Amino acid sequence: MAQDKKMVESITAMDVDFAKWYTDICKKADLIDYSSVKGCMIIRPYGYAIWENIQKILDGRFKELGHENVYMPMFIPEGLLNKEKDHVQGFAPEVAWVTHGGSEKLTERLCVRPTSETLFCEHYANIIRSYRDLPKLYNQWCSVVRWEKTTRPFLRSREFLWQEGHTMHANEAEAREETIRMLNVYADFHTNELAIPVIKGAKTPSDKFAGAEDTYCIEALMHDGKALQAGTSHYFGDGFARAFDIQYTDKDNKLCYPHQTSWGVTTRMIGEIIMTHGDDSGLVLPPAIAPIQVVIVPVAMHKDGVLEKNRELYARLCDKFRVKLDDNDQSPGWKYAEYEMKGVPLRIEMGPRDIEEGNCVIVTRHNLEKTVVSIDDIENTVAKKLEEVRSGMYQKALANREKHTYSCTSIEEIKETIKANGDGFVKAMWCGDEECEDKVKELTGIGSRCIPFEQEHLSDHCVCCGKPAKKMVYWGIAY
Amino acid sequence: MAQDKKMVESITAMDVDFAKWYTDICKKADLIDYSSVKGCMIIRPYGYAIWENIQKILDGRFKELGHENVYMPMFIPEGLLNKEKDHVQGFAPEVAWVTHGGSEKLTERLCVRPTSETLFCEHYANIIRSYRDLPKLYNQWCSVVRWEKTTRPFLRSREFLWQEGHTMHANEAEAREETIRMLNVYADFHTNELAIPVIKGAKTPSDKFAGAEDTYCIEALMHDGKALQAGTSHYFGDGFARAFDIQYTDKDNKLCYPHQTSWGVTTRMIGEIIMTHGDDSGLVLPPAIAPIQVVIVPVAMHKDGVLEKNRELYARLCDKFRVKLDDNDQSPGWKYAEYEMKGVPLRIEMGPRDIEEGNCVIVTRHNLEKTVVSIDDIENTVAKKLEEVRSGMYQKALANREKHTYSCTSIEEIKETIKANGDGFVKAMWCGDEECEDKVKELTGIGSRCIPFEQEHLSDHCVCCGKPAKKMVYWGIAY
Repeated sequence: MAQDKKMVESITAMDVDFAKWYTDICKKADLIDYSSVKGCMIIRPYGYAIWENIQKILDGRFKELGHENVYMPMFIPEGLLNKEKDHVQGFAPEVAWVTHGGSEKLTERLCVRPTSETLFCEHYANIIRSYRDLPKLYNQWCSVVRWEKTTRPFLRSREFLWQEGHTMHANEAEAREETIRMLNVYADFHTNELAIPVIKGAKTPSDKFAGAEDTYCIEALMHDGKALQAGTSHYFGDGFARAFDIQYTDKDNKLCYPHQTSWGVTTRMIGEIIMTHGDDSGLVLPPAIAPIQVVIVPVAMHKDGVLEKNRELYARLCDKFRVKLDDNDQSPGWKYAEYEMKGVPLRIEMGPRDIEEGNCVIVTRHNLEKTVVSIDDIENTVAKKLEEVRSGMYQKALANREKHTYSCTSIEEIKETIKANGDGFVKAMWCGDEECEDKVKELTGIGSRCIPFEQEHLSDHCVCCGKPAKKMVYWGIAY
Repeated sequence: MAQDKKMVESITAMDVDFAKWYTDICKKADLIDYSSVKGCMIIRPYGYAIWENIQKILDGRFKELGHENVYMPMFIPEGLLNKEKDHVQGFAPEVAWVTHGGSEKLTERLCVRPTSETLFCEHYANIIRSYRDLPKLYNQWCSVVRWEKTTRPFLRSREFLWQEGHTMHANEAEAREETIRMLNVYADFHTNELAIPVIKGAKTPSDKFAGAEDTYCIEALMHDGKALQAGTSHYFGDGFARAFDIQYTDKDNKLCYPHQTSWGVTTRMIGEIIMTHGDDSGLVLPPAIAPIQVVIVPVAMHKDGVLEKNRELYARLCDKFRVKLDDNDQSPGWKYAEYEMKGVPLRIEMGPRDIEEGNCVIVTRHNLEKTVVSIDDIENTVAKKLEEVRSGMYQKALANREKHTYSCTSIEEIKETIKANGDGFVKAMWCGDEECEDKVKELTGIGSRCIPFEQEHLSDHCVCCGKPAKKMVYWGIAY
């Protein structure tokens, strides 16, 4: 058991150093590795399998809603990036530039895509002619590059994986509907699959995506009280359409500009999962995206019939769940620590006495609760337990967020609240002026996260200037 | 019907201009579009859906064989690329170089990966310690960049999508076994899923992958008599392991170098499908990877009950196959031409008379044969027809390859054969000297494609120098 102990101790405790705890999990749960490519990460098999499960679920949702996948070039010529003024201002400072092909200098620099609005728009200008061509509902799974100064695995990496939806619609109403529809897809995915409660809302004007008319987001609260933007959906109006000369003829043969959206989520969600559900024993994965949902650990494996019975159990479960039977030579204790580190939602232990009694022991990772269950109806028991795990994880995360969400009506109260409780979400009223938004940040250190769809009336006055309040805003420190 | 006619005529006939016929299909079957990114292509939804089907099947095979997916950075620092001498010589002339991040010049240039051996090796050096860590069976789905001078959609593009398997093994025997195992996966996939006959063999030493000890390939013959390398699998020995200092301790605690393989197939296979199965009406897709396997076209759609019955038919088939019911306003004739262009394997037509008689008409795309069948057992009939299509397409492609495969025993005979028949595969004996290989190419225009595993003894002498022959080689002009 000394070995198990050592392994668990080798993660920094969350309370000691949260940032170190985070990167310890990334490394020790075999999610990532570093390389000589600075600011980029290697996503290892266990980490990539999480991403594949995320992709599979989301891709299915997108397709059910009529979206089609495409693949655009990874390069954007400088001239094309420059076509939409706000967009290029937002992205040019942080792109990687290709200047040479082989030994030849290129006549025009190419950036590695930081996002693909410009490429999609150029293509849409080619293929959209008539109202019959609308809507266009395209999505792309790819990697993008943003030349960040400081990087952290999953959260901020010079290259990351994502999906980017880009859609074109006949009018504003349809485009706005799509923008919110996709935000809801992300929110439902977080709630039902990732077991992470999120706040849906709009970004303040100063915090919109480069070139967008409106940016919507889902925001989650991490263990350390910091906020994480977990997905965004943008309504562009017809700004890009005008810049790229995308026009269609409507039913009355009139030329119109289509209205546009884009929306995306990234491998950042893996960081979000770690910082929402993880604990001092390691990762805790929601069942829907766990590469291994159930690990079977035989106890006293070398006793007569034990391995055989464990194999029978495996055979009963392996069609219905992602199951691993670990019959390696290490001790059960070593294995417990290993799969706790890897966040496997359910562990089944079965030894000679359990077998004699027709039972096995189920341990749920998120709360380390042990239950002795009959193996008679094990398939249904496991299904029920996995659903219990999901809802238990969600409730735990929700309780944590509620515990760290505060309502404040003055700048002083915000300061005192943060001082007394540490970081978290602060709900406070806002007049709508950017000046006040900046001042709140300057005075308290926390910035606006979003204007939630679910508004509350906390007071009549802006928390900063005291003028009439227009909106309740979530404030916090963001990853 | 004038419209249908026009549409079909808008493809250049294969015999008139094969290259034009090919790009016409790429564009008119909605597989690709061009953009301002020179040498790259946009893969449109219909083209990308083919790639997704290919990915799904191959990814399943890889995983069944124990491979795990990972994601490596897309950049390779110049110093890392330089670590294996032969490798860098092969790739440096054709890579894209990133020199700036944002506004800052990088201290070391990064190339966009043309292939990822160097990145995998750097990672393997970090994670391989003991014989217990072997084998490592990793695969990556990604895009890669090679700065080609002349490009064609799918066949040769500056950026393309592929998978690259990279594996490490305890010894030569296991690595060689893996190399051949994966070549066989590619060959089986071509035969059974793509309905394309391929020749399995080894590349001659002059034609090996940069840094490999042995390169194996599958070669297919296109409609125009040109050969296409459809997949490769490389055995590296321990050359990279030595260059990257990857060592493991074996059971006797001795330090050893592991042996390595890599293997890949690309979006090039879509070009291969076009040039193997396509005809003057457009694309012809093998059922396994067709985005739409069955299209249902109602005839006299506006007559009472016709659309309803067609919808019933759709409902019976849509769980079992990828089916589309086209109830748009265009004429049936227009739709026939459209789905022939798109290569949909089966078309079902059903009008009032068919309905009255309890029948429908099935048209198989690859030979445009019509059959009247009862709808009573339509699920099984469609399944049988799709299998007929697959085997019919394979037999047709095989017959075409055999028709254009010639055995020659002298340089003169090769010249005459090509003059009389056009391009194709020429089988001829070879002494094993690179000088003769070069001379055959110089004198006849055709180069060595591969040394097939299935050897035939055509004569005792090298076709070029007359010295004792070592191997029978396939020669041809390659894409």
